Amino acid sequence: MNAAYPLKNDLILRTLNGGKVERPPVWLMRQAGRFLTEYKEVRARAGSFQNMIAYPEFAAEVTLQPVDILQVDAAIIFSDILVIPEAMGLPYEMNPGEGPFFPNTIRSVSDIDKLRPAEDAANLEHTYEAIRMVKQELYGRVPLIGFAGAPWTIFCYMTEGGGSKSFSKAKSIMYREPAMAHRLLDLITDATIFYLQNQVAAGADLIQIFDSWAELLDGPTYRAFSLPYIRRICEALPHVPRIVFPKGAFFALPDFQHFPCEGVGLDWHTNPSEIADLLPEKVLQGNLDPSALYAHPDQVRQMTQNMMRSFPQGKHIVNLGHGLHPDTPRESVLAFVETVRSSSFVS
Amino acid sequence: MNAAYPLKNDLILRTLNGGKVERPPVWLMRQAGRFLTEYKEVRARAGSFQNMIAYPEFAAEVTLQPVDILQVDAAIIFSDILVIPEAMGLPYEMNPGEGPFFPNTIRSVSDIDKLRPAEDAANLEHTYEAIRMVKQELYGRVPLIGFAGAPWTIFCYMTEGGGSKSFSKAKSIMYREPAMAHRLLDLITDATIFYLQNQVAAGADLIQIFDSWAELLDGPTYRAFSLPYIRRICEALPHVPRIVFPKGAFFALPDFQHFPCEGVGLDWHTNPSEIADLLPEKVLQGNLDPSALYAHPDQVRQMTQNMMRSFPQGKHIVNLGHGLHPDTPRESVLAFVETVRSSSFVS
Repeated sequence: MNAAYPLKNDLILRTLNGGKVERPPVWLMRQAGRFLTEYKEVRARAGSFQNMIAYPEFAAEVTLQPVDILQVDAAIIFSDILVIPEAMGLPYEMNPGEGPFFPNTIRSVSDIDKLRPAEDAANLEHTYEAIRMVKQELYGRVPLIGFAGAPWTIFCYMTEGGGSKSFSKAKSIMYREPAMAHRLLDLITDATIFYLQNQVAAGADLIQIFDSWAELLDGPTYRAFSLPYIRRICEALPHVPRIVFPKGAFFALPDFQHFPCEGVGLDWHTNPSEIADLLPEKVLQGNLDPSALYAHPDQVRQMTQNMMRSFPQGKHIVNLGHGLHPDTPRESVLAFVETVRSSSFVS
Repeated sequence: MNAAYPLKNDLILRTLNGGKVERPPVWLMRQAGRFLTEYKEVRARAGSFQNMIAYPEFAAEVTLQPVDILQVDAAIIFSDILVIPEAMGLPYEMNPGEGPFFPNTIRSVSDIDKLRPAEDAANLEHTYEAIRMVKQELYGRVPLIGFAGAPWTIFCYMTEGGGSKSFSKAKSIMYREPAMAHRLLDLITDATIFYLQNQVAAGADLIQIFDSWAELLDGPTYRAFSLPYIRRICEALPHVPRIVFPKGAFFALPDFQHFPCEGVGLDWHTNPSEIADLLPEKVLQGNLDPSALYAHPDQVRQMTQNMMRSFPQGKHIVNLGHGLHPDTPRESVLAFVETVRSSSFVS
């Protein structure tokens, strides 16, 4: 744990560590994003999405924006889950409005053998430098979240080459060549462990693992191809609170009961009170539908209050059930955060 | 019920009507599709996807192909759920590899007012003619399934204009302008009722309602914006067995317990034995992952048998958990069907 500056607002850490809190903490997935004109301004200066990650000054600037503008209770370092496959040897392109694209993908065991060793791959010094800069600028105002993609999700991109409706290539390898799939998942896991350990060493106060493509699987395949790798990552990071977001994996939520993480992210399809019964020891994070922020701010306040009531008091980190849409009205995001900040638990 | 020809294979109807069966029936969503070279040959002759629907000869030919080639236990009339919005006044384009696109979409109440009346919209005589032709050609070999999209799914296309990651426009209307959403859903429902009643009058032996975008919602919004409209459709068709496929709506499956339908389709994420406990009176349909068919035929046989064992005996229609992928190996599809056809219940 980096304790250079004592934290003035440690709501999210207290919640994850099982301490008492006066209200739930709030942050938003993609809070540093295109819905902020200030973000778009930096994006224009940087010239590209990838430059924003590669130059610590840009990454640090956009990481801090939502703390200043929205007054959320945590910052999350600006980066992308795809920096790991890139560092392993598969560069990707980011075309506006189209999502990521990998010109080269993994098709065979020999493609895996050509990848860079895990420790070299995790040599993402620009991100660690951005974390150090953000920590300094924050000066203890709020904690900083480090993150990475879950190995299964990274595997999907490395084999498929981009987004897809059915991820046929990724799933074809999983079903036809499970040994090859496990070999690649293992290597991604090693790189991710180094990467997150370095983020923590640089100052990240807690970490989140995004399993964005959990939703492609079912219970048995999730237990075989995703959960064991997330478990290994979590076990390698015992000294910071860990949140896992298995998006769309309603079928696997009961598996998190005895899982080495403090928090579990819920997508907006999930009924929080049902999951609170299943996972009484976990802190739950989520889960307003990001599309609900298209509503009028008054409706947003109402829906946010309703959502908060469906979570267990004191064991909830308020967030959306998925990342913010780029065209979300700013006033709705402000209404969302303000509703949480002005709430208080009856003691 | 059309009883022009006595059915030689009525496995699917007996299953849905609660009768005794010697093995489960099997058919596949998108069984008339691009994985068949015979289908692509007709597609080339027809010139376009939409011509295959518009000319009953083409529609009938591809409807019959899987009955002949795969020996499935039901045919499903070849058409598209988007013929309803088209008939209501919103034409769509189908660009290869891209999915459907509507040049005009519904953005306001006045756009809704300009749509064609429901009864006129359901005047899709070419499809009814195709049904009559198929019934004649089948000559009682297997039953014929009629189908339509669920109003919520059609609403998504009519407001969004095509596929989308987040369906922001559709959901923005739902959250910001619920009265307008209900007005459009109501009109779609009326047209769909006429359409399905006409399909049954022409000879469809049972019907399926595809709620492909159920997965965009959560429990409360599904109960408000989708279920009541599907219920109205089912109630208007009391004389044929009805299957509802609420894709991705794990959160709403308990709601089907007292729902006016005989069958419920399960996507591949769902654990059938859990749902069988929740819905003891329903016949369940599904649910092998279509990507599992990328595996070797021997593996496919094994996975199909495992899947069948997880459903309640005699209350199961074997299918995939989603439509067949166009690049599915034909031998895997044959292995899937053959595994079911060679099974038998221990009495």
